[in-house]
Amino acid sequence: MGNNRQMILNFFMNSTGFHETAWRHPLAEPEGVTSLALYKKMALIAEQAKFHTVFLADAYELGEKVKHQALSRLEPYTLLVALAAVTERIGLVATVSTSYTEPFHTARLFASLDHLSGGRAGWNIVTTGIGNTHLNFSREQNFEHTERYNRALEFVELTTKLWDSWEDDALLFNKADGLYADPDKIHAIKHKSDNFSVEGPLNLPRPPQGYPVLAQAGSSEDGKELAARTGELIYTAQQTLKDAQTFYADVKSRVAKYGRDPEEVKIVPGFSLIVGATEAEAKEKEAELRESIIPELGLKRLSSRLKVDLFSYPLDGPVPQLPDPATINENRSRFELMKNMIESEQLTIRQLIERASGGNGHRTFAGTAVQVADEMEEWFTKAACDGFVIRPQQLPTGLEDFARLVVPELQRRGLFHTEYKGRTLRENLGLSRPVNQFARKTFEAGGIHQL
Amino acid sequence: MGNNRQMILNFFMNSTGFHETAWRHPLAEPEGVTSLALYKKMALIAEQAKFHTVFLADAYELGEKVKHQALSRLEPYTLLVALAAVTERIGLVATVSTSYTEPFHTARLFASLDHLSGGRAGWNIVTTGIGNTHLNFSREQNFEHTERYNRALEFVELTTKLWDSWEDDALLFNKADGLYADPDKIHAIKHKSDNFSVEGPLNLPRPPQGYPVLAQAGSSEDGKELAARTGELIYTAQQTLKDAQTFYADVKSRVAKYGRDPEEVKIVPGFSLIVGATEAEAKEKEAELRESIIPELGLKRLSSRLKVDLFSYPLDGPVPQLPDPATINENRSRFELMKNMIESEQLTIRQLIERASGGNGHRTFAGTAVQVADEMEEWFTKAACDGFVIRPQQLPTGLEDFARLVVPELQRRGLFHTEYKGRTLRENLGLSRPVNQFARKTFEAGGIHQL
Repeated sequence: MGNNRQMILNFFMNSTGFHETAWRHPLAEPEGVTSLALYKKMALIAEQAKFHTVFLADAYELGEKVKHQALSRLEPYTLLVALAAVTERIGLVATVSTSYTEPFHTARLFASLDHLSGGRAGWNIVTTGIGNTHLNFSREQNFEHTERYNRALEFVELTTKLWDSWEDDALLFNKADGLYADPDKIHAIKHKSDNFSVEGPLNLPRPPQGYPVLAQAGSSEDGKELAARTGELIYTAQQTLKDAQTFYADVKSRVAKYGRDPEEVKIVPGFSLIVGATEAEAKEKEAELRESIIPELGLKRLSSRLKVDLFSYPLDGPVPQLPDPATINENRSRFELMKNMIESEQLTIRQLIERASGGNGHRTFAGTAVQVADEMEEWFTKAACDGFVIRPQQLPTGLEDFARLVVPELQRRGLFHTEYKGRTLRENLGLSRPVNQFARKTFEAGGIHQL
Repeated sequence: MGNNRQMILNFFMNSTGFHETAWRHPLAEPEGVTSLALYKKMALIAEQAKFHTVFLADAYELGEKVKHQALSRLEPYTLLVALAAVTERIGLVATVSTSYTEPFHTARLFASLDHLSGGRAGWNIVTTGIGNTHLNFSREQNFEHTERYNRALEFVELTTKLWDSWEDDALLFNKADGLYADPDKIHAIKHKSDNFSVEGPLNLPRPPQGYPVLAQAGSSEDGKELAARTGELIYTAQQTLKDAQTFYADVKSRVAKYGRDPEEVKIVPGFSLIVGATEAEAKEKEAELRESIIPELGLKRLSSRLKVDLFSYPLDGPVPQLPDPATINENRSRFELMKNMIESEQLTIRQLIERASGGNGHRTFAGTAVQVADEMEEWFTKAACDGFVIRPQQLPTGLEDFARLVVPELQRRGLFHTEYKGRTLRENLGLSRPVNQFARKTFEAGGIHQL
């Protein structure tokens, strides 16, 4: 790691913030959930603050808790495209599942977004371990954990083939000779396996970035392997410096094992933040959000996640014994993380609800810009991360606070850039442009892959 | 049809125009194919001219003719979303296939676009009859013609259930009581058949238009039935006034047969245009495009469409005998239309290539604004259509010509509106807002469906 190393900041966006009931906050704008205006405002604040990316998560089912929780959302790829049209520099990362989409469609969508945005697209690859999603897709059951990850790996390889199916110089636009494209530089991919059979080529040119940036959040054993083989931007939930350092070293060494440069993989833990001008103000904001908590919602959510019926235990008593992580199919790593947190901190059910409401398993913190920057600096300089996913507990004001207070503090310390240095997201993240696997001659000559 | 009846105009958009080799024209901008700028420019011209919609077609395979033809394209839904973010009034219609997508995803995408655009979305429902598309989607063969249409009908019914799965007033945003939504107004759909099994509900609120406008282009027997049952905006290719009148009466009577109001279905034939300030200028533009023709491309394209090897016949000799339409699985109605045109006009192969290059089966016309308006007026007033799909043979200039010359002429004659009258696309097309099938009490009371 060089001396000029600076952190990567990603803004995790939703309509009202990442505290579970932040939509109840007086400054929240839940009515904005389906209109562009609210998201556009936030994307422009994030771009002004020089965030590397705006990131949107997804789920393919509503979930049961919409009575109390802001679960309604626009399809995130759609929203990201609209934001591409109204921003200029910020990266745009959306979640799309490898278990419930077609590789041809997914490759084409992200290629289209990459073109339209001038090389600012990123794809958060998820395998969708959530409960009843399969029931919305004519499937009797979800894929089992390992099968899901095997499919995901093949899916990603397949999409890279589709992106590479056009060499970078395949388009000719030669009006005089009537040559629109060079068919020798457009390749069928002829992918065939038990999971997928895709002939190719794609029906649009290779994305400006070669491939959109590949983001990934798996933290289970399977998840870390997938991240090590395919991921470039790794999202993770880490509660302590030590755990984050262990995860960081683990993933970087796995990356090396697959012959990849560990510098080409950026690890960015989530940080669920409340920022105040003073410590008292931060604590006051934290208390406001704590008051919005609906215990019934927390019990429902955590009972489902932890696979134990918390309704039958006293709210101020200890969390009961949890099942063995090996028996968990969905989001196993988050389960383990929460189990460890509960056991090491001996949380009561009420305390657990408060912790989980603010961060959903991610680290929570409330403080001044200096305190927040201190925390971030420590993690960043002690080999625990390459940057962060900023999850403001309350939106849009939490983003405004971070942009106004924390970003200048980080910049003052030299920890964060003051301007976008590249044109593409890859350039801004310090990731190289992938070599085209079908342009063999170019490849062997050590050619054009670093455009 | 009332006296104040005015025509619906749709702008069919692609990068360089609808003449097959228009990309070779000196004023064509083929390099703009993957960037937003060219499309944004055209969408704003179309909006300024008060076109009801901008429409984008699609295909899920590249096709073999990319050497000579501008076949590369952005995924149209993506492009439409980007255009939604930079326009305010024009409707936005994109093609998505019912044979190669999931109902849950498709319902969600168009609902998201409808929200983001403030009720301007339309979905062109296609069944994808094209050659080798199935090879890009892990399928050994395409669905057979009738099966494709049966699936399409079920798919559309299913997506309407998903759009209706949230009643219009399901969202509460009640901060004080912690009630985000009313779960009694959000419904599982529990759709189950051999084709699809979808539990629902959708994970976002009902679209502003209730449903996005449903466009459809099937002109075969199966296609017309699907249009009559589900379509609201019907695209069609018609060469003569008489054929157009027959089609118009046929579809409108089928609509009535299903208990729908024929006024709720708008029929808009394609019109492949070249407009000049004078007739001489129009003919000169036509000649320029004729010179761009690559005979080899025309032979390849037509041999594939007509299922006969035209390469083995003399270019200036007659078109050979064509197969029986009943043997054609893909795009059967277009096949029949071209067969009729060839036989009634006794075209040589070269003449056929020229005709097909300009219109791809749609009616072609080159003339002044007055001549074009005369043609349109005749069709419109003689019960042949409710409007048109304008397919400029050359883009972007052909759109500029139409907007500058033909639109004012139509407006002078009172045949075309001078301002958007509604906020949503439905309102501008004169289509009512669908009743929510799950809001039974409201429905029975004759309630809120005409918002």
